[in-house]
Amino acid sequence: MFVIGIGPGNPQDRTHRAERAVSCCSTIVGYAPYVESIADLCEGKDTYTSGMMQEADRCRMALQKAVAGATVALVSSGDAGVYGMAGLAMEMAAAENLSVEIEVVAGVSAANAAAAQLGAPLMLDSATISLSDLLVPWETIITRLQAVAAADMVVSLYNPRSKKRVRQLEEAAAIFRHYRPGTTPVGIVTAAGDKNQQVVYSDLEHFLDEEIGMRSLVIIGNSTTRLIDGRMVTPRGYYR
Amino acid sequence: MFVIGIGPGNPQDRTHRAERAVSCCSTIVGYAPYVESIADLCEGKDTYTSGMMQEADRCRMALQKAVAGATVALVSSGDAGVYGMAGLAMEMAAAENLSVEIEVVAGVSAANAAAAQLGAPLMLDSATISLSDLLVPWETIITRLQAVAAADMVVSLYNPRSKKRVRQLEEAAAIFRHYRPGTTPVGIVTAAGDKNQQVVYSDLEHFLDEEIGMRSLVIIGNSTTRLIDGRMVTPRGYYR
Repeated sequence: MFVIGIGPGNPQDRTHRAERAVSCCSTIVGYAPYVESIADLCEGKDTYTSGMMQEADRCRMALQKAVAGATVALVSSGDAGVYGMAGLAMEMAAAENLSVEIEVVAGVSAANAAAAQLGAPLMLDSATISLSDLLVPWETIITRLQAVAAADMVVSLYNPRSKKRVRQLEEAAAIFRHYRPGTTPVGIVTAAGDKNQQVVYSDLEHFLDEEIGMRSLVIIGNSTTRLIDGRMVTPRGYYR
Repeated sequence: MFVIGIGPGNPQDRTHRAERAVSCCSTIVGYAPYVESIADLCEGKDTYTSGMMQEADRCRMALQKAVAGATVALVSSGDAGVYGMAGLAMEMAAAENLSVEIEVVAGVSAANAAAAQLGAPLMLDSATISLSDLLVPWETIITRLQAVAAADMVVSLYNPRSKKRVRQLEEAAAIFRHYRPGTTPVGIVTAAGDKNQQVVYSDLEHFLDEEIGMRSLVIIGNSTTRLIDGRMVTPRGYYR
């Protein structure tokens, strides 16, 4: 079984290894929009899709098909190893005694794709934090936000806000506002790689006013991040 | 001008977008081993290579060729926006008044590639820190290591050790050892994607004894990271 990162969504951002792995499988399992985005590779294959929050069901289905002898591709957007399905597959296979050889195929992560659209905000040390408190206690997330903010690291925020969940991003903004000036650059990329992609440049004081949703990734700069010719850049320091 | 991440080194890990960008350029500039690794795309093109530490020279060369009217590909391994050339290019173009349109093409980063080889260590919140103190003061790096260690985040260490620079990794290990047990999983991937690739599983107490060099990436797990069927996994918590 392959757990495959198909990149941010545009076929142009897939790797050859990911495409080859999908192509050599007989069975494709994934969240419906992700499988849809690789429809060109799935012709004639058994495909199984399900909706959001059905991760464990999809994973079990994929493992069971593999145990039954199929070569299976379990697909994630971005990189399958970053808030994706790779870890769940390994955990479930071991816990349920499903003897399946699992190979992870890395992809371009959502943070890296968003950074390329914004300029070069992740040139130096950075952190990746999800604001979803479905699986991690909010107190733990707060501790991490504070640590990263105090240590002057750039941060990529995954799952920043949903229709029901708006408080987390406000709290995160307040934490960073405590350590960094309101003029600190903040970049927002929504639906990266998609034809509806939106790239917004804002700052720590104003970015909460922007449209930010489930498909957005928010990058908050550090003390050296600045706009250069309209792009968000964290200079590495080569150029002095 | 395109600043292009060509992934961890194996042609299989390049994206279509990266290959297409290289193919449409007349001039290729990069560190010699990276340009060598895309030789199949460079036939008939002007190529300019230079050695390590010549980043600024390469960047200036690329910008000057672009100003002179060439379409230029400046290539980085991994992702061009993570300890790569993207930020330098934007900074230099602005500082030296070189009017060049710069597009960044994201690639599979070294950390994501290493994680896929190890299993799924980066499933949850993590940080990326370079131990090279050539461009960032060591005190700043220490502060970040301490913050990330205390906040129980997984960390990917870039530039962990070179022949001349061994003290930094020892200090980093001591910081994490202060916050985490010696049994905490540590993964080391050297020359990811290459035919000489080495994948080593160790732990916080013993990993300094392993072969770690300029082409290694070290991932230190957090309190939940464990070995599952011999792979390094940070469970996301779906599976309870």
